[in-house]
Amino acid sequence: MAFLAIDAGSAAQVPLSMLVIFASAKLLAEVFERLGQPGIVGEILAGVIVGPHVLGWMAPNDVLRILSDLGVMFLLFRVGLEVKPAELMKVGGTAFVVALAGVIVPFLMGWGISAAWGQPRIESIFTGAAMVATSVGITAQVLASRGLLQTRAARVILAAAVIDDVLGLIVLALVSSLARGSISYLDIALTAVLALGFTVFVAKFGARTVRRYMPRVQNNMVLAEGQFALAMTLLFALSLLAIYAGVAAIVGAFLAGMALSEAVDRRVCDLTNGVAELLVPFFLAGVGLHLELSNLTDRSTLMLAGLILAAALVSKFIGCGLGAIGMGRTDALRVAVGMVPRGEVGMVVAQIGLRMGVMAASVYGIVVFMSVATTLIAPPLLKLAFRSAPAAAGPAAAGPEDQGMVRLG
Amino acid sequence: MAFLAIDAGSAAQVPLSMLVIFASAKLLAEVFERLGQPGIVGEILAGVIVGPHVLGWMAPNDVLRILSDLGVMFLLFRVGLEVKPAELMKVGGTAFVVALAGVIVPFLMGWGISAAWGQPRIESIFTGAAMVATSVGITAQVLASRGLLQTRAARVILAAAVIDDVLGLIVLALVSSLARGSISYLDIALTAVLALGFTVFVAKFGARTVRRYMPRVQNNMVLAEGQFALAMTLLFALSLLAIYAGVAAIVGAFLAGMALSEAVDRRVCDLTNGVAELLVPFFLAGVGLHLELSNLTDRSTLMLAGLILAAALVSKFIGCGLGAIGMGRTDALRVAVGMVPRGEVGMVVAQIGLRMGVMAASVYGIVVFMSVATTLIAPPLLKLAFRSAPAAAGPAAAGPEDQGMVRLG
Repeated sequence: MAFLAIDAGSAAQVPLSMLVIFASAKLLAEVFERLGQPGIVGEILAGVIVGPHVLGWMAPNDVLRILSDLGVMFLLFRVGLEVKPAELMKVGGTAFVVALAGVIVPFLMGWGISAAWGQPRIESIFTGAAMVATSVGITAQVLASRGLLQTRAARVILAAAVIDDVLGLIVLALVSSLARGSISYLDIALTAVLALGFTVFVAKFGARTVRRYMPRVQNNMVLAEGQFALAMTLLFALSLLAIYAGVAAIVGAFLAGMALSEAVDRRVCDLTNGVAELLVPFFLAGVGLHLELSNLTDRSTLMLAGLILAAALVSKFIGCGLGAIGMGRTDALRVAVGMVPRGEVGMVVAQIGLRMGVMAASVYGIVVFMSVATTLIAPPLLKLAFRSAPAAAGPAAAGPEDQGMVRLG
Repeated sequence: MAFLAIDAGSAAQVPLSMLVIFASAKLLAEVFERLGQPGIVGEILAGVIVGPHVLGWMAPNDVLRILSDLGVMFLLFRVGLEVKPAELMKVGGTAFVVALAGVIVPFLMGWGISAAWGQPRIESIFTGAAMVATSVGITAQVLASRGLLQTRAARVILAAAVIDDVLGLIVLALVSSLARGSISYLDIALTAVLALGFTVFVAKFGARTVRRYMPRVQNNMVLAEGQFALAMTLLFALSLLAIYAGVAAIVGAFLAGMALSEAVDRRVCDLTNGVAELLVPFFLAGVGLHLELSNLTDRSTLMLAGLILAAALVSKFIGCGLGAIGMGRTDALRVAVGMVPRGEVGMVVAQIGLRMGVMAASVYGIVVFMSVATTLIAPPLLKLAFRSAPAAAGPAAAGPEDQGMVRLG
């Protein structure tokens, strides 16, 4: 049955990839929860363990990439559903300072260390750019799972992460032009205006528009689950527009959730939860799966990796902490820790550098290591920083003791 | 920003594919429901319309293939959750006769017509084999959406479709060996035993095992949504084992759902519904998207296509109807109509024939046309056939008037 074997191979890819990643992520989440650690760390670590460098059961593939893209999209959408735009706007000023300081300090520190180590100029600048990224998904998942999305610190983190994405885009545009040897300030200004325009416009007017038109459309629909169909359509449309505007799809997903936060029933939240429960582990384990250790062999590279990791932690911590100092020490600490994980965003910048040929494979490995490591370190620190915060009595607080997974409604 | 444009292209593929397919499927489902037609026909037709032959907005791609694979997996899993194994076993005898007659009559008729038309021998046999397939997903979705899964005819259809999958596998194995010129009866017997053994074993002992061990595992878990995590793990594991045993992943998915039907809470059904609501449209529109008309140009091919389509309708109708005649005329009619859609299963057989080089592109086009057409024709006929059936008072009957989408629990 040669043809069956061949067909089984390709047909088996979907369930095989899903079984290995999902089951190992959930198993390790269970183990970590039992040890009193955030389950999310177990899920990321599951990717590292089944990945190429430990057990070698699973390598990144198309199925996992697509499910991971969808997973982080639904993660941010679900978080958006719990956040009212007005509340985010209120902390906009603080968030902007946090985001800006959280971009400048890591960028300069990464660049400086890399240059002092004797790396080429463009490579050093790219390393700095990769340190700018913030993976809001990781922090959002931790906060949502503990019912803390309604705290002031959580709102500042979410708003700052969105702004950070726009600033990161500008930094990346600048750095890439530098690498190509020609900077077009007009292009960069246009990029910035488009990205900022899209984000501010949707955040400001999205909810109002949805509240106004959604009930009308919905009341005229005969289709079952029509509201969910409308919500999904908005999610995909805004994710797509976000990409065309230059920001990440997840910014669009978050804005879509936020726009819908005051307009949808509990039923939509329940259905969304189902999708997120299934797909988020693929995003988390996917971060771990991409860990690339094959170039981290000699002592000098390892030392630089350690230094870059320390700088990644310290620079975001100092930058964002100082930016948020006006909120008081406790909240500033929380914001600072919440901005630490680089996750998939740091990796994307490194991949661009690698593809442009301005980043050596060893430096790529260092940046990916830094991205995964900050992502693993942040959740336990977040747990500590938010130790004294009571779970908010918002719609998310159905189970304040509920750890590891978000429950909405 | 050349690099951004490039990145936007690949990053945009996921939300772009999802937006076009999901939104058009739901839009046409809404239109069809308003016209009093099954929404499912609109969803399949949406794939035809946005596909290469009408608007040309979307061609089959990896994202859509993976989401479609997952969609039909979750469709059958959700149906399985509503079916108790004992109830299926009770109709096993009738279902076997229905499946067998529904394999033999279409096979001989397809082969005969194709041979009489002057097609090569192997190609004719392959055409016959493609007519054997039954796409249970289409019928199951129609019945589930109308709360009819608990009717006797629905149970016979589900059981017969599972048996049909095993019989179809044996036919395909035979036909493929013929095409390669060497038949190993031992191999085919082993294939049959393995496929049959897996299906019967899981159907018979799956539910008992799950009822016994699931509560123990679950009560020891600290993870939130632990039951859903266990259910998903079983779903992926049985889908994978099904493929290794030679049957389709959806048979494993259906068996997983059935094994869990007496062991899971409503919460698991709700979360599963969310996934299915999102993904099933990708399966349905995906069937339409694969319609291949470019070889259906000359008169002779078109006539053969019409003839094959008529034979596909009549042969399943007669074969399955006669097989079910012991149930009385009304139920026999329902079963006969329910087994008509060929959907994705017919296409898979044609693809194997095409890849093995024994099926011409024009005949491939005919088989795909037949698969899509039977799938579009069956839902309205099903609606008619089940006109007089009251929606069962089972767990699915939360909304008996609820059309177009399944609601569980």
